Amino acid sequence: MDTLKQRLARITHLNQAAAVLEWDQETYMPEGGAEARSQQVATLRSMAHELLIDDETARLLEAAQPDSASDSDLVRIVSRDVQKARKVPSSLIAEMAEASGRAKGAWQKARSGNDFPVFAPHLERIFDLCIQHAEALGYEDQPYDALLDQYEEGATTKQVAAVFDDVKKDLVPFVEAIGQAKPLCEGPVHREYPEADQWTFGMEMAERIGYDLKHGRQDRSAHPFSTSFSISDVRITTRLEKRFFNPAFFGTLHEAGHAMYEQGIDPSLEGTPLADGTSLGMHESQSRMWENLVGRSRAFWEFAFPTAQSTFPGALSDVSLDQFYQAINAVMPSTIRVEADEVTYNLHIMLRFELEQEMIAGRVAVKDLPAAWNDRMESWLGVRPENDAEGVLQDIHWSLGAIGYFPTYALGNLMSVQLFDAARKDLPDLDEQIRGGQFSNLLGWLRTHVHQWGRRRTANEILGASTGEGLAAGPWMDYVREKFGAIYGL
Amino acid sequence: MDTLKQRLARITHLNQAAAVLEWDQETYMPEGGAEARSQQVATLRSMAHELLIDDETARLLEAAQPDSASDSDLVRIVSRDVQKARKVPSSLIAEMAEASGRAKGAWQKARSGNDFPVFAPHLERIFDLCIQHAEALGYEDQPYDALLDQYEEGATTKQVAAVFDDVKKDLVPFVEAIGQAKPLCEGPVHREYPEADQWTFGMEMAERIGYDLKHGRQDRSAHPFSTSFSISDVRITTRLEKRFFNPAFFGTLHEAGHAMYEQGIDPSLEGTPLADGTSLGMHESQSRMWENLVGRSRAFWEFAFPTAQSTFPGALSDVSLDQFYQAINAVMPSTIRVEADEVTYNLHIMLRFELEQEMIAGRVAVKDLPAAWNDRMESWLGVRPENDAEGVLQDIHWSLGAIGYFPTYALGNLMSVQLFDAARKDLPDLDEQIRGGQFSNLLGWLRTHVHQWGRRRTANEILGASTGEGLAAGPWMDYVREKFGAIYGL
Repeated sequence: MDTLKQRLARITHLNQAAAVLEWDQETYMPEGGAEARSQQVATLRSMAHELLIDDETARLLEAAQPDSASDSDLVRIVSRDVQKARKVPSSLIAEMAEASGRAKGAWQKARSGNDFPVFAPHLERIFDLCIQHAEALGYEDQPYDALLDQYEEGATTKQVAAVFDDVKKDLVPFVEAIGQAKPLCEGPVHREYPEADQWTFGMEMAERIGYDLKHGRQDRSAHPFSTSFSISDVRITTRLEKRFFNPAFFGTLHEAGHAMYEQGIDPSLEGTPLADGTSLGMHESQSRMWENLVGRSRAFWEFAFPTAQSTFPGALSDVSLDQFYQAINAVMPSTIRVEADEVTYNLHIMLRFELEQEMIAGRVAVKDLPAAWNDRMESWLGVRPENDAEGVLQDIHWSLGAIGYFPTYALGNLMSVQLFDAARKDLPDLDEQIRGGQFSNLLGWLRTHVHQWGRRRTANEILGASTGEGLAAGPWMDYVREKFGAIYGL
Repeated sequence: MDTLKQRLARITHLNQAAAVLEWDQETYMPEGGAEARSQQVATLRSMAHELLIDDETARLLEAAQPDSASDSDLVRIVSRDVQKARKVPSSLIAEMAEASGRAKGAWQKARSGNDFPVFAPHLERIFDLCIQHAEALGYEDQPYDALLDQYEEGATTKQVAAVFDDVKKDLVPFVEAIGQAKPLCEGPVHREYPEADQWTFGMEMAERIGYDLKHGRQDRSAHPFSTSFSISDVRITTRLEKRFFNPAFFGTLHEAGHAMYEQGIDPSLEGTPLADGTSLGMHESQSRMWENLVGRSRAFWEFAFPTAQSTFPGALSDVSLDQFYQAINAVMPSTIRVEADEVTYNLHIMLRFELEQEMIAGRVAVKDLPAAWNDRMESWLGVRPENDAEGVLQDIHWSLGAIGYFPTYALGNLMSVQLFDAARKDLPDLDEQIRGGQFSNLLGWLRTHVHQWGRRRTANEILGASTGEGLAAGPWMDYVREKFGAIYGL
């Protein structure tokens, strides 16, 4: 086991180093450093990959004699990683890297010029390579399974599609009903919020919910993210808008939620590939729980609003708790995913999930994608993009070859409520605790049931063990109906 | 050549990545991240070392068919690196790493408790291992040659000792004469300098002398340094003292001088081990030139003083240019190297150089080191440390195993004047240019004669080609005598 672990530590250190370099690129790197930086990251990632698929690694895994449950999991899960990695020819990886490099440039051009045909041939190539990738990986039922599995291990297209359909049939009419209700006033969040005070307030609350700043920190970046350099160094970034409270504050809670997951992994997994979130969906469940289920709850603001008022007297002295609570929860169907509210967000995801599958299955051609996008957007959300830049060209993900990635966002929303409900069963006075600014029991529950396991348990296993059921649409839909029904008087 | 270059690029990228991780450790890393970070850096450095000494690298170097002067240099110099690296058994490297890890802890304890005996056995072990290291590397004349060569390739103990003796015989009486002259008033640099304004002023001047911020940036750290992640990303750090102008400002010029060297390397050397300063002495010549020969000159302040006055009206509105010029050039023999002025600094270095050699040769025992240190300090500088924490325990370097490193500081001072004199021959109105805030011709001269070469030419070769002579004491001594003779009226 020792030789194996040393080898896995090297692989882990190479990937962690790459993460530091990528973090620096987004936060502090001078613009002239980009070209050399991308080569450095490529070298680190390539060397990690080569070590993983090396024959010696396979030999050590086969010969390993684990004498603990944790070591057994390590051998089992890394063996699976190796098998998958070895299935994909390096020529395909290189082709994908080259194609996505070009596609990204074409996408930027297409979006800024609102010119889908510029991007179309690149997108065709990306989908083509993704199908090849799926064939190389193999699947039981359909190619999309293999793509989804890269981001959400163990999830199947059928399972996800069934759950999403469940959500959609109730959510579309619910969104319509909200659209007919009296709109809420968003005004209070669009006042003047001095940037330095936003920073302080966000960090104070992030620390309060349990983000450990001895093992983390926040910096600025154009696109907020969280990243882990080790279990003991997990960072977040934020962006600040002077006249908009939400992006920095809820962004900080969101990223802190991701970071607290990684900070809570069992330290004995450090230096192994298991010291990571088990899936993107489970990761998103943690960020969304702190951002929405806690951070956008009335209980939270009963605790936090007095501090907010004293931090932002100019913006909030004449605003009531109720007015503020409504402002941060206003539902407003929009064509842009990243601006979507808690209720409509999942519809943006489901749209992408369906179109990805139809593309993979050849039922929608690339040239017909913009119309398909716009029609579905209009029928589900009641809004139609004015142009493709606001429609099918809005996301970078497809240009990067990330097909099968989007659904994890919605899975995270669904799981967050299932886990929160389970936590509430174990902590019957959870709302009271939140109202009192006490978050340690909730965090402790998450540590026990989710965080500590790292990749030792899949998302489905974690859900099963902690909620007694599998992924389901009902809890999230109930939560949305109850919360927003009350807010909108439906 | 291509396969060789790809391999060398990997080695380079691993070392560059390690540099990013070390920079982050000193600037932004949360305290809890230290343990994992040191393991990550160790992995990157080990993998770079293993690739360098790998048989395949040696084979590729032998088989290489360079078709340009630059490629010939690459093969020649890297072959020499490989030969040296392969001479040192990895067991010795591991022993040194372990011993210096312990010695560093013991040194910290000894210094804070002013208790040399706590450090003594560790220092003995370090010197013992350094002698083994020298024997493994081999040398022509004496073991110290091999140690010195690690930092100052091509320099010999004899050459350095002869030059240092030349300096010492004139410098000691000159320092004594200054001690008997009327002291200058340092007051103006010890007033209130708001930190944000120090930052702005320092960066303005760093950019003005030619530090390229599209390919660099400054951050804060406890101990200022410069570091290169590629030719296109070379960074510096500084520290700020509210009531002391010198550390941040001259520190920034110093580090910018180092950084401009690395920024000026021929871009075609990127991704090779030649994209680095050729020696620590040559590196220091660049930092000291901008810090002292430019930054502490009267010509520079004729240009910069009006800006300084308007940036720091509180501190400087009632100070004249002459008073300021004297304040930044006050000579004050002290026991502490890092606080030493331009005149006395070299004596601190020569003291360490002599003692290192005497230790290696067994002429001074570790237990007698404190007394030897204090006696020499008193006889050369006229000051005697009150205790060992201010004497032999003041520097971290020996605990890290860096024997042969100190002399490069003084070599840098000497070379800086030799190069500056040569530049002035080519740019007869150099002082006038500096007085007008024009630094691009000086920087251009340094780019041509020093920077662009990277490691393609040794320090001795650069000196020879640009000054027509080898390392010499005279120019520096003449410079000091002229500048400080005028200031002190000697």
